Amino acid sequence: MLGYSAGHVADQQALEAQFDQQLDPADLRTWLLDMASAPNQVGSPHDKHNAETMLAQFKSWGWDAQIETFYVLYPTPLEEQLELVAPTHFVASLKEPPVVGDASSSNTAGALPPYNVFAADGDVTAALVYVNQGMPDDYKELARRGIDVKGKIAIARYGGGWRGLKPKLAQEHGAVGCLIYSDPSGDGYGPGDVYPKGGFRPADGVQRGSVLDIPVASGDPLTPDIGATKNAKRLAIADAKTILKIPVLPISYADAQPLLAALEGPVAPKDWRGGLPITYHIGGGAAQVHLQLKSEWSLKPIYDVVAKMRGSELPDEWVIRGNHHDGWVFGAWDPLSGNVALLEEAKAIGALRKTGWKPKRTLVYASWDAEEPGLLGSTEWAEAHAEELKKKAVLYINADTNTRGFLNSGGSHPYQHLVNEIAAGIRDPETGVSVLQRQRAHQLVEAYGSSKEEDKARAVTLNAGGDVPIDALGSGSDFSPFLQHLGVAALDLSYSGEDDQAGVYHSVYDSFEHYVRFGDPNFAYGIALAQTIGHTMLRVADADVLPMQFGALSQTFADYVQELHKLADNEREHALKLNKLLDQNAFQLADDPTRSVLPPARESEVPALDFVALDAAVKQLQASTKAYDDAYAQALTAPEHRVPRAELDRLLQNMEQQLTVPEGLPGREWYRHLIYAPGFYTGYGVKTMPGVREAIEQRHWDEANKYAGITAATLSRYSQQLDRATQLLKP
Amino acid sequence: MLGYSAGHVADQQALEAQFDQQLDPADLRTWLLDMASAPNQVGSPHDKHNAETMLAQFKSWGWDAQIETFYVLYPTPLEEQLELVAPTHFVASLKEPPVVGDASSSNTAGALPPYNVFAADGDVTAALVYVNQGMPDDYKELARRGIDVKGKIAIARYGGGWRGLKPKLAQEHGAVGCLIYSDPSGDGYGPGDVYPKGGFRPADGVQRGSVLDIPVASGDPLTPDIGATKNAKRLAIADAKTILKIPVLPISYADAQPLLAALEGPVAPKDWRGGLPITYHIGGGAAQVHLQLKSEWSLKPIYDVVAKMRGSELPDEWVIRGNHHDGWVFGAWDPLSGNVALLEEAKAIGALRKTGWKPKRTLVYASWDAEEPGLLGSTEWAEAHAEELKKKAVLYINADTNTRGFLNSGGSHPYQHLVNEIAAGIRDPETGVSVLQRQRAHQLVEAYGSSKEEDKARAVTLNAGGDVPIDALGSGSDFSPFLQHLGVAALDLSYSGEDDQAGVYHSVYDSFEHYVRFGDPNFAYGIALAQTIGHTMLRVADADVLPMQFGALSQTFADYVQELHKLADNEREHALKLNKLLDQNAFQLADDPTRSVLPPARESEVPALDFVALDAAVKQLQASTKAYDDAYAQALTAPEHRVPRAELDRLLQNMEQQLTVPEGLPGREWYRHLIYAPGFYTGYGVKTMPGVREAIEQRHWDEANKYAGITAATLSRYSQQLDRATQLLKP
Repeated sequence: MLGYSAGHVADQQALEAQFDQQLDPADLRTWLLDMASAPNQVGSPHDKHNAETMLAQFKSWGWDAQIETFYVLYPTPLEEQLELVAPTHFVASLKEPPVVGDASSSNTAGALPPYNVFAADGDVTAALVYVNQGMPDDYKELARRGIDVKGKIAIARYGGGWRGLKPKLAQEHGAVGCLIYSDPSGDGYGPGDVYPKGGFRPADGVQRGSVLDIPVASGDPLTPDIGATKNAKRLAIADAKTILKIPVLPISYADAQPLLAALEGPVAPKDWRGGLPITYHIGGGAAQVHLQLKSEWSLKPIYDVVAKMRGSELPDEWVIRGNHHDGWVFGAWDPLSGNVALLEEAKAIGALRKTGWKPKRTLVYASWDAEEPGLLGSTEWAEAHAEELKKKAVLYINADTNTRGFLNSGGSHPYQHLVNEIAAGIRDPETGVSVLQRQRAHQLVEAYGSSKEEDKARAVTLNAGGDVPIDALGSGSDFSPFLQHLGVAALDLSYSGEDDQAGVYHSVYDSFEHYVRFGDPNFAYGIALAQTIGHTMLRVADADVLPMQFGALSQTFADYVQELHKLADNEREHALKLNKLLDQNAFQLADDPTRSVLPPARESEVPALDFVALDAAVKQLQASTKAYDDAYAQALTAPEHRVPRAELDRLLQNMEQQLTVPEGLPGREWYRHLIYAPGFYTGYGVKTMPGVREAIEQRHWDEANKYAGITAATLSRYSQQLDRATQLLKP
Repeated sequence: MLGYSAGHVADQQALEAQFDQQLDPADLRTWLLDMASAPNQVGSPHDKHNAETMLAQFKSWGWDAQIETFYVLYPTPLEEQLELVAPTHFVASLKEPPVVGDASSSNTAGALPPYNVFAADGDVTAALVYVNQGMPDDYKELARRGIDVKGKIAIARYGGGWRGLKPKLAQEHGAVGCLIYSDPSGDGYGPGDVYPKGGFRPADGVQRGSVLDIPVASGDPLTPDIGATKNAKRLAIADAKTILKIPVLPISYADAQPLLAALEGPVAPKDWRGGLPITYHIGGGAAQVHLQLKSEWSLKPIYDVVAKMRGSELPDEWVIRGNHHDGWVFGAWDPLSGNVALLEEAKAIGALRKTGWKPKRTLVYASWDAEEPGLLGSTEWAEAHAEELKKKAVLYINADTNTRGFLNSGGSHPYQHLVNEIAAGIRDPETGVSVLQRQRAHQLVEAYGSSKEEDKARAVTLNAGGDVPIDALGSGSDFSPFLQHLGVAALDLSYSGEDDQAGVYHSVYDSFEHYVRFGDPNFAYGIALAQTIGHTMLRVADADVLPMQFGALSQTFADYVQELHKLADNEREHALKLNKLLDQNAFQLADDPTRSVLPPARESEVPALDFVALDAAVKQLQASTKAYDDAYAQALTAPEHRVPRAELDRLLQNMEQQLTVPEGLPGREWYRHLIYAPGFYTGYGVKTMPGVREAIEQRHWDEANKYAGITAATLSRYSQQLDRATQLLKP
């Protein structure tokens, strides 16, 4: 048991068994029913009610709880209008009607209409252009067809990258408005029967969501880097860097179909076609759209519920657990399914506390508000308490939506082995084996059916019998400010993968009724999540030495550096290949003159990049991590040697911060972590070693060399601090 | 100029230029308009009219022409009925209504309704099951879901393999009927606007077609191996090996949608989903279908038009050109666009003849009837004249549908270099470069956008500057009986690739009006085809030595053997991987119990296969082909040496037959070629070295070893005969 000397293992196992005995799926059902019983978006009465209810619950379970209120910019829609004005007239409904068998869907008093929070106000009438998923490569394809979006309204389908990038890129290309719709090929009748017959998005269902520029910074756009307290110094809205300038509206596929059917011009390339029964055209004909949006742009209070249980031995080491509680409408899946597991953990730990047990380290349980508009509740709290957290936080564990299926684990790699140890001790409700064994089987079967290199590599790793690798984290939930802004080690844990019979994400149909049919009918996976995170919290809180192991980190980082080498080589080879074809005039000769497509743009040659220091830093890191892991194993099996625990913990607590730099990533200094970041052009999806990787992808060769150096120096610092920890372990 | 001594090159170039001067696109337009002016399927008055018109044309151009009539089994529909009888009632229309702007589509007197020729009569009412494309892997997926087709009616979409395999496999799995429909994702509004707005299949369009068991044998099912002359000995219909036992009907997507929407049971796997705006289910619920078919099963006369021009020096060496003339309704694209190019070639050669020129070898021009039901016209002619053809035919050149685009070239590899030489001399109408240069550019651009290994390999070959490789031939047009049954060297040539703005294959909408909008509006590619094939015919007919080069053959065959090694290795590795996962119980653990999917079946281990003789035979072949090509180059640059031409030609004419064996392929002795065959489970798609390759794919290890030996012996025989030819070239 990582972090525990032999004499403490049995006690800890008994504690965790006691914890398990407190868990009751009926609690989760009761709480989910109540919390999802009314619209609970930011600023709604039920959102506040949920916070206050949780406050009372924490207190009743013996926690030192409070609500921390912040005041954030949170625009809400006043007017929304969308119509096709030429060549025919069609008015979009922009409504999600009630469905039979789902009482919640009729109970929408106080709900906001579908909208993209932080879309600009606007009143525009312009030609419509279909931009596929609205990602950078899509604009290259448009250019090859002589079509741009300047002065036009772009319509993009969901998918391919984070929603907020679609209007951002449309705006950068000169569009005056943007529509985002859910195409039924992936999100509707394509994958399965629609609600209420099945669980998938019905024709009128809309995916709401934030279009704040989260890849630049999450949190309240008016208070970057500081907590949005009542009297905080605020930017003017016009000066906020993370707010768009154009109106954006999410729409259903019922509303999108007449708009798309009205488009003329080139037929969309094969990959751009969706599941509507029409021929997808890009645009260029008479189709004109009128889009009008107006929001109310005031500050709104948000309610973070924060509960603490003071550590008996190391009170200044905090183990933090978070989940948000605000939804888009009812939010039964997202986020309440995870939030009720958090409550169940807190209840059980409270019960343990009442038996006289105390955690050695301090436990912090937090239910965040305002995650949906852009991780506002967690970010403001993290920013408000930045200095304290940097000193005290040892680990932040996040969850969000949780459903039937397989364990997903992502986060800081020194905790990979702990996650494996924990998962080996949790019984999967459906199969009876451990959730680790099921996770491993699932990943092996996925890899078996996949032709992707990374899946094949994972299968080799899994078959070698080592740990199930944890994923690197991008963004998309509340771990981001902790991990990537503050450098607090983090984990993100959930169950999913059998929920792909359903999809009503960010719509009114994300209801209690829907969740208990398609999410986790018996709350068995809610209990599994409470066990998985609860055990992890207890294991970290009571460990003799923080349960970290570094071999996975150096191996994983070495893989990242290999990927960078390969990426640069591939880019180099690609440029040569492309430019040779251009020299041969091959694209013009292969072109069909009746529907001409221009050749791709010539690519600059890829120079030799300087990865020498990075390669050396990885070697150093491998030596240092091996030395630590060896010394650790030695120290815990040699109990006669007294490890200076407090001093060691101080070094370990701070390890993750060694991976951050104050200047942050290029163009987005809020993101300080040099190993994990959301991709600038993927949004949620992670880019590892982002300073180098994205510089290569964007062909910024000097920046790639510069960040290769910065990343190498950072890894070297990390090794040196780990070497100091190793010294403490030695007799 | 391959096959020509230096002194003869200028004359030949002048002859080909003279040929070109005869070509006039107005001819093609006039003839297409006439030939496609009425339904011209087998047995129709206009089919006979077309044959008689061509006979008169050939004669008027100075050819020795005749119609050869065969009498073949050709069932035609008397009754067709399809209805959904539960859970709701829907009667399929089975009709292709006229469309605006296409006069042909109103002029359907005498047309047959959409049907699958050689479908059995039947009257069945049974549950409906969606089997995706109805290919072998699809049945594995059905089995994993606990669903079979026994006693049921299978509905398959087009694609994935030849149409006739769908009912064949359904029948093998116990189905009592089969429906085949055109899914709009690939054949309808998915790829583009439907007719008449655009060129794609409208909702009511149906793909007719044969379901004769062509992978077993093409031709009249009652007269295997012999010509279907009036008094030929015939099998009883019940004894014909290539006729199905169950009713099959092709339907439109308008008719398919209500049937598919009525299905319940498991949601179809992702790859099975098409473009209809429904959730695709596999079946298992109440959906019941009534299918009734009755045909008139008499013999019908078919009319092969065969025109000869006797060779002045080597009259017993025949260079044969063929194209079929029967269509499914009007057949403007398929086959008449190719047939009018054939006529234009014959007209131009006739004009050359009138100037006093005579071909050195005999030219044979043939317009086949009854290709659509299963290559009947060409097969019966080839079988009727088998012995003469084996002795005399030096090359058979086929065409069929022809449209705007890029040269496609397939066939016997000793003619690869000739095709390249010819293509280098034809000007592409759209770009002005040679069709060879454009073909090369097209293939390079295709490879650039592809991740397939074979495309990458082709790009390497093309960039190395050698010949554009010609493809191996499977089946699907009239080259098959010549190449694969008789062992006559063959080429199949056409232009296409810019016609993917349209698709009305085998429907009533394959009309003159449609072709001149979407096929080849100016008939420029009809002329290009006439040039390409006309030059090839003349080049072969007048060559000093048959213009064959063998390096491409040995290199290509060596690649095939490498593929066999790799295939066996991959199968071996796959079995190990799969069986390990089964041992680990991974599939059960990764299974979702609410929609359980059984694990794949365990695979037998792949033994070591004996490719030693095959590897050696390829080495021998490489040496022999190099020796021939070197000796050939020497002989033609050393004109003082008189090559014994007639003797050499006799050896060369017969080379392709060295690749055949009398016992043919396993289970289908009609196919005697050991290098090229249509796949037993792909239908039209080629399988190279099929005796070995398909044995591995079907895990018949003994058969794989046996055919590896037979193929090796065959290659060795080929080398020996080529060595004799080489001796003749030496001074």
